[in-house]
Amino acid sequence: VAYQGHPGAYSEHAALTLCGADARLLPRETLADAFAAVADGTARFAVVPLENTLAGTVPGTVSLLLESGCSVVAEVSEPIDHVLAGLPGAGIEGLREAHSHPVALAQCTRFFTAHPSIRPVAVWDTAGALRAVIESADPARAAVASRFAAERYGAAILAEHLQDHAANFTRFIQAGLVPAPDVTGRGPLRVMLAVRLAHRPGTLATLLLALSEAGANLTRLDSVPLPGSPFEYEFLIEGVVAAALDVDRLLATLDPGTRIRVVGCFDAPRTVDRPRGA
Amino acid sequence: VAYQGHPGAYSEHAALTLCGADARLLPRETLADAFAAVADGTARFAVVPLENTLAGTVPGTVSLLLESGCSVVAEVSEPIDHVLAGLPGAGIEGLREAHSHPVALAQCTRFFTAHPSIRPVAVWDTAGALRAVIESADPARAAVASRFAAERYGAAILAEHLQDHAANFTRFIQAGLVPAPDVTGRGPLRVMLAVRLAHRPGTLATLLLALSEAGANLTRLDSVPLPGSPFEYEFLIEGVVAAALDVDRLLATLDPGTRIRVVGCFDAPRTVDRPRGA
Repeated sequence: VAYQGHPGAYSEHAALTLCGADARLLPRETLADAFAAVADGTARFAVVPLENTLAGTVPGTVSLLLESGCSVVAEVSEPIDHVLAGLPGAGIEGLREAHSHPVALAQCTRFFTAHPSIRPVAVWDTAGALRAVIESADPARAAVASRFAAERYGAAILAEHLQDHAANFTRFIQAGLVPAPDVTGRGPLRVMLAVRLAHRPGTLATLLLALSEAGANLTRLDSVPLPGSPFEYEFLIEGVVAAALDVDRLLATLDPGTRIRVVGCFDAPRTVDRPRGA
Repeated sequence: VAYQGHPGAYSEHAALTLCGADARLLPRETLADAFAAVADGTARFAVVPLENTLAGTVPGTVSLLLESGCSVVAEVSEPIDHVLAGLPGAGIEGLREAHSHPVALAQCTRFFTAHPSIRPVAVWDTAGALRAVIESADPARAAVASRFAAERYGAAILAEHLQDHAANFTRFIQAGLVPAPDVTGRGPLRVMLAVRLAHRPGTLATLLLALSEAGANLTRLDSVPLPGSPFEYEFLIEGVVAAALDVDRLLATLDPGTRIRVVGCFDAPRTVDRPRGA
């Protein structure tokens, strides 16, 4: 199971939750590398972040998912609770730099406003940032990372709950090159659809109405740019269906230019996921 | 006019295009800082990236825009054409690191695959990366940045057209604390609507249908997380209307829990912006 980041990353934690403690985990530097590991058969699955409840859609994940041809087989929402971790013996008053992923830094604006002498420094991932801080042996440096990363690298926790909002979750998906998901099972099922529409006004409204009439309660919709076609998009539509969703029957009622791929279909998770009526 | 990045950033170029060569430009480190400059009156407008045709929605911009209460008064799509810039006299064969914004690095995967000895290093912005490279005087470092950044900092261009796809545009918006946009003018007008929906299935489909019947051709739709309410969203809906859009009349036909704010309304730009029928 490939994930993006270093050991101790939030993604590693999500991979263990989704695939079990026995899963053999493969850390990869970038999201593209994690999907490449699935494409070349090194990994069966990639566990990657899809959205964060403060920062929104994770850039890159949806495009990589749709390009990869992978299907989503499960998801989990993990609480994101940042600590400021540094060298054992270091103090917060001596810090000059805090390294982390740009999204993690952006979630801690209040902390950095209250501590103007600590400069945020953007790097690839939270756990990698902490590992580099520990290796540097520089007590003026710290990292914004998870509590389990701090434990993993033997770092001192200099401050906790660094994020601006306590309710901070990242939703991770488990994606692999598996047979197309079955949307005929018993619900409630969570479905993810990739949709391309004909160039005609009203096609998105008509599609959403048809989905609604088919019993789908949509939770989320995003425009995904088509590479090589500036300002053209496909849509990733997510929702919960009470029972089966007959995509062929749905397509028969829509504009013939409509293309729908079922990207994911799995039991609706038992996390804090509250579908929003749409 | 505040923008994110250092002089030579793509955002600076967009700000000059939108506000004229006479505009006094204020570089800011982060997107939040650019919006803060508008909030405290230091700047009249912020010019910020909204979406890139390869990387998708720019994380943070939409949330900051909606929180700021700013309105969008204009937009421009700028071609993004990266060069690899380093110290005068440096050669590509001696490079060990290429610094840039993570999104810029992610647009150049083919280059980095073809040059495995050059390690991508993520920093805050493209122009700032190049300035730091020049200041370091280290010929083993280069930056992925714009051609005008290379000219600005007297850097040598070691390779050009670094991005994976030639058609690479970023759409920038000009936002300010100005009176609410007028959607009663003559079209075609580009409109941006922030929408909150009642918790009821089918509300998004009904809204899009009403917009379509009111003559709006939707181009793009994004789910924007509500801070403090995990997995609840508002929607940023963009489209082109032929003439006026009567929001009050529209609301009268919709679920009473629907809230619509007109975030932007301006003449449809003359750039490569091809609306996609939705």
